[in-house]
Amino acid sequence: MKSRVDTLKSSFESEKLEGYIVANAINILYFTGFLGGARLFVPREGENVLYVYGVNYVEAEETVKNCRIELVKRSGGDADKKVANKIKGLKFGHVGFDALSASAYLTLTKTLKDIELTDEGKLVWELRKVKDETELKHMRKAAELTSEGMKAAFETIRPGLREYEVAAEIEYAMRRLGSGGVAFDTAVASGVRSAYPHGGCTSRKIRSGDLVVLDLGAKYQDYRSDLTRTVTVGKPSSKQVRIHEIVREAQDRAFRSVQAGVKACDVDAVARGLIEKDGYGECFVHSLGHGIGLSVHEPPSLNSEAEERLRVGNVVTVEPGVYIVEFGGVRIEDTVVVCKDGAEKLTNVSYDLRLD
Amino acid sequence: MKSRVDTLKSSFESEKLEGYIVANAINILYFTGFLGGARLFVPREGENVLYVYGVNYVEAEETVKNCRIELVKRSGGDADKKVANKIKGLKFGHVGFDALSASAYLTLTKTLKDIELTDEGKLVWELRKVKDETELKHMRKAAELTSEGMKAAFETIRPGLREYEVAAEIEYAMRRLGSGGVAFDTAVASGVRSAYPHGGCTSRKIRSGDLVVLDLGAKYQDYRSDLTRTVTVGKPSSKQVRIHEIVREAQDRAFRSVQAGVKACDVDAVARGLIEKDGYGECFVHSLGHGIGLSVHEPPSLNSEAEERLRVGNVVTVEPGVYIVEFGGVRIEDTVVVCKDGAEKLTNVSYDLRLD
Repeated sequence: MKSRVDTLKSSFESEKLEGYIVANAINILYFTGFLGGARLFVPREGENVLYVYGVNYVEAEETVKNCRIELVKRSGGDADKKVANKIKGLKFGHVGFDALSASAYLTLTKTLKDIELTDEGKLVWELRKVKDETELKHMRKAAELTSEGMKAAFETIRPGLREYEVAAEIEYAMRRLGSGGVAFDTAVASGVRSAYPHGGCTSRKIRSGDLVVLDLGAKYQDYRSDLTRTVTVGKPSSKQVRIHEIVREAQDRAFRSVQAGVKACDVDAVARGLIEKDGYGECFVHSLGHGIGLSVHEPPSLNSEAEERLRVGNVVTVEPGVYIVEFGGVRIEDTVVVCKDGAEKLTNVSYDLRLD
Repeated sequence: MKSRVDTLKSSFESEKLEGYIVANAINILYFTGFLGGARLFVPREGENVLYVYGVNYVEAEETVKNCRIELVKRSGGDADKKVANKIKGLKFGHVGFDALSASAYLTLTKTLKDIELTDEGKLVWELRKVKDETELKHMRKAAELTSEGMKAAFETIRPGLREYEVAAEIEYAMRRLGSGGVAFDTAVASGVRSAYPHGGCTSRKIRSGDLVVLDLGAKYQDYRSDLTRTVTVGKPSSKQVRIHEIVREAQDRAFRSVQAGVKACDVDAVARGLIEKDGYGECFVHSLGHGIGLSVHEPPSLNSEAEERLRVGNVVTVEPGVYIVEFGGVRIEDTVVVCKDGAEKLTNVSYDLRLD
């Protein structure tokens, strides 16, 4: 089987690249299995080099198969200088990179005065956004753990409990079952705070009648999942029920519209159209969804400007929301994988608004 | 009291800056209290502008006091274009930034052809690395929660338990007491894995006689703490005891050498000298410590090349380690605050190697 680095190399010709610098830690993980501060240099021909610091050297030597490991001294910026000298020695004229800081970019261009050094981050995303079978296996497991976390939330929530106490139970349930930590900061946003799409989690006490937005994710083998449900403790108001119905329908219809070949913006439009029709268009203040994998937010994005067509193996979230200031918000989200004739939900847990 | 942004502005003159772009999310949090993807523009004179996306607009409007909030459309890179146009309109000749990606840097320099755009990240670090009373209060609380996490680990560890199961108990204890999630990925590195300084945590079962490196941290009000202890379950071997004694003495002596006015490299040298004298110099493969605050790794660094003198209010870790491949490792770490005549430990828990 062709390695991921080899697949990357095969994209060099069309971009006229002689080499590539991988600087993003998650991209390095994707190509090598190694996680830590490092640089990976991939020439079109010849050996790949992974530059690591002393603190990681032994681990890298023992675990990384497809690169030579080169030790870098502790001091900052040194890895970039090593990469620059390597490229200088090879007399390359055009090298791409995935993601550099401005200061790393300036360090490299200072040594490599005549080189063309271009942002080719999209080449790695083209690979990462289509998940292979092993990746999907890990993502299924992450989604399973995530669903268990949500069930723990359902069992825990009651009036008087603080938001972070609910988060504690969610995270404990996922971790005990084998989650490698959280995919992102758990959100337990209750009452008026549920109107903040990125509400996080505070010491606020949950009250009877509150809307509570629960947004959480587990990690498995570094792959992430993302799941949101919105609930009330006790009897919801008719307005809460109505908003929940609108978001639920938008989420369901958008999910049903996902399949390979469909434009990402058209999936966004399905949910947005329904919510607009009900008069809440202004309250849906974010994109419908985002790709997810080793990163919690990655391509493809499902937003109103995304012309990209979905492909088999894309994994995305479908998460419409309606947020009403001083009233509260509702968001419903699943992590789904794009298939030939539709999509499959990886997360799987009740959509009910009312808990008791 | 002078605001943090005003203190930043007062450093502009010496660097001949007319304005400053804050792009790093943690720096924006430090200046505004707002956490999320955004850009903060700080001109030498006149109003500060915080550029935020729709998803965060209401929250920013309600919580941020010292800036005008400007809405940015959803699409990527748009905030940088807005900042570029703002600077163009002001006809500034020299603007600094804290940390930009290469692609943001290239976007800005494309619009601002004649401008000098320089990396002035150090100006923000000069502020952030000296903690004020409020910050120290939060860091004390984070350290307290962290110490409770370690106690939970001591109570949990027994042969047969998986590393991640110990992590679950650590994180649950901290979270229930009010931790805002973990400061970094919890490490429970047992047996031969303890020789990996960044060993993380796997499904390996802990065995009697293993060295177990426990490295963990809580967060409070976004401030982080960092604590490591190394333990054995059951009777340690004489070599395990010896290595632990060496690291313990190095950590204690290095801690006692911390005070305002001392060079960071000299503190590193205290620990490194002792470990070298005992013949394990090659096994201490990282710096002695790092600054910590809103970020887990920040200046000042305690390493062999750091000529910087410590100042009252710096918060740093002191964490020597000895790692022996195929045998195991020992690391001992506290989070400490630099005082006029010494240092104070914020983390506080037993150093004993033997658990039972």
